[in-house]
Amino acid sequence: VLGLDPDPARLWPEAVEAAPASGAPAVRAAGAVEAHCAALIEAAAPACVAVKPQVACFERLGGAGWDALARTCERARDAGLLVIADAKRGDIDVTARAYGQAFFGGTPTPFGDVPGLNADALTVNPYLGADAIAPLAEAARAIGGGLFVLVRTSNPGAADLQDRRLEQDGTVAEHVAKLVDALGEGQEPLADIGAVTGATVPEQLERLRELMPRAPLLLPGIGAQGGRVEDVAPAFAPGAAGGLVTASRSIATAHEKTGEPPAVAARAEAERLRETAWSLI
Amino acid sequence: VLGLDPDPARLWPEAVEAAPASGAPAVRAAGAVEAHCAALIEAAAPACVAVKPQVACFERLGGAGWDALARTCERARDAGLLVIADAKRGDIDVTARAYGQAFFGGTPTPFGDVPGLNADALTVNPYLGADAIAPLAEAARAIGGGLFVLVRTSNPGAADLQDRRLEQDGTVAEHVAKLVDALGEGQEPLADIGAVTGATVPEQLERLRELMPRAPLLLPGIGAQGGRVEDVAPAFAPGAAGGLVTASRSIATAHEKTGEPPAVAARAEAERLRETAWSLI
Repeated sequence: VLGLDPDPARLWPEAVEAAPASGAPAVRAAGAVEAHCAALIEAAAPACVAVKPQVACFERLGGAGWDALARTCERARDAGLLVIADAKRGDIDVTARAYGQAFFGGTPTPFGDVPGLNADALTVNPYLGADAIAPLAEAARAIGGGLFVLVRTSNPGAADLQDRRLEQDGTVAEHVAKLVDALGEGQEPLADIGAVTGATVPEQLERLRELMPRAPLLLPGIGAQGGRVEDVAPAFAPGAAGGLVTASRSIATAHEKTGEPPAVAARAEAERLRETAWSLI
Repeated sequence: VLGLDPDPARLWPEAVEAAPASGAPAVRAAGAVEAHCAALIEAAAPACVAVKPQVACFERLGGAGWDALARTCERARDAGLLVIADAKRGDIDVTARAYGQAFFGGTPTPFGDVPGLNADALTVNPYLGADAIAPLAEAARAIGGGLFVLVRTSNPGAADLQDRRLEQDGTVAEHVAKLVDALGEGQEPLADIGAVTGATVPEQLERLRELMPRAPLLLPGIGAQGGRVEDVAPAFAPGAAGGLVTASRSIATAHEKTGEPPAVAARAEAERLRETAWSLI
């Protein structure tokens, strides 16, 4: 999975040049971000099954950034890739429905329907419980999509809460894993509710896979955060689609190590990660 | 606190009439949403200290919606109100910094700085732990703002995780309350890191206030969700600003019960809630 985390201060030079020559900084920066993502998609698509745009990176450019996100999703679909919107949303039911409209099917208004992002999946935060996830699952299912619920994230601070032991049911992350397993629907071998399980804690993967035998696992943290593809084998227990190896910065900045043109280095790094992942299956 | 949760299908008639007469549905709906929020702010501002825009409700209208959110925040500030962006964000450090740029100070780009929403506070999800909250706290502090961390939310599903007991440290919500207390800085009697504690579980408020003696408590769930202002007295222990009583739908839809013009009914309901809150202090 190609992570798209565009930082306006670290875009590929060709993308900065492709920005509109005039206009407000937000509009020009959003144009450059869009060009950067387009070039990354063109370079890495042959080695990927999906893109994972990090919504924060677009949102910080305001309305122009959100429009760039929508066009980037469209472009990824045109390249034959699935779209996993990495937004980590979570809110009470009425608000979850609004986020469902934003990321999936769209919003009815007195002026006609406003299309949503039409994502194939959305990352979701479980702190508010099952009734906050259900409306998002419903919105996703209505267009044939799904969710990835945060179970054990890839950052060191995840231990503060997710690794704490409950009186019953193991750790907080294990408890959430059981929720995820219960929420999943769809045909075997994979359910439509997946989980985010950081590649930085491979020692937890086997247990989490046991608790969620049918969940597709999204595996961030490869590369810049220190996770290694070689360590995520348990994710693939239900088959090749059971684990989604995600990399962002290590692909977008590969040229800084190799000295090659950015697109050449990005394609090579994406290809290398794909081959390593396939070798585990 | 005036919650702004505009649903394009339930806007005040005057707002629908104020929308642009032509253009894409998203642009027209965003115009109507902005007019609705402007009318609500004008009606209720005298009884409020802050607005709490629900970001999902704007995000579902795409880039046009995000621009309407930015203008709504500006209008609230012009009316002398603080802005609490209700976005419930939470992500790993590099992404948290991007959200910090989106909601607080802004983003440096090769084309000049892109301004952020310049909010006074942001609601934050603690599932990823302290290192995911710290960059947001830093971004908030840089412009004199703060955060409200979800501790015990107002929805029934909150019990799934937040009410579960840990082996040590009480419930998950109580554990997060201790994190919030530890993260807070600033002058007595109130810290700059507050907490979201739903008004629907008044029986938990006293204990949570004990664990977070200096945290401003944001109290959603009054009205439509069944919470009552009369039950949140423990929030006010550190003084009048210790509790922020939040209402959205009960103010925006007050006219449906009274038959008065929407603005008249909204102002009366906001005034009633304010007087009830003040009577507790």
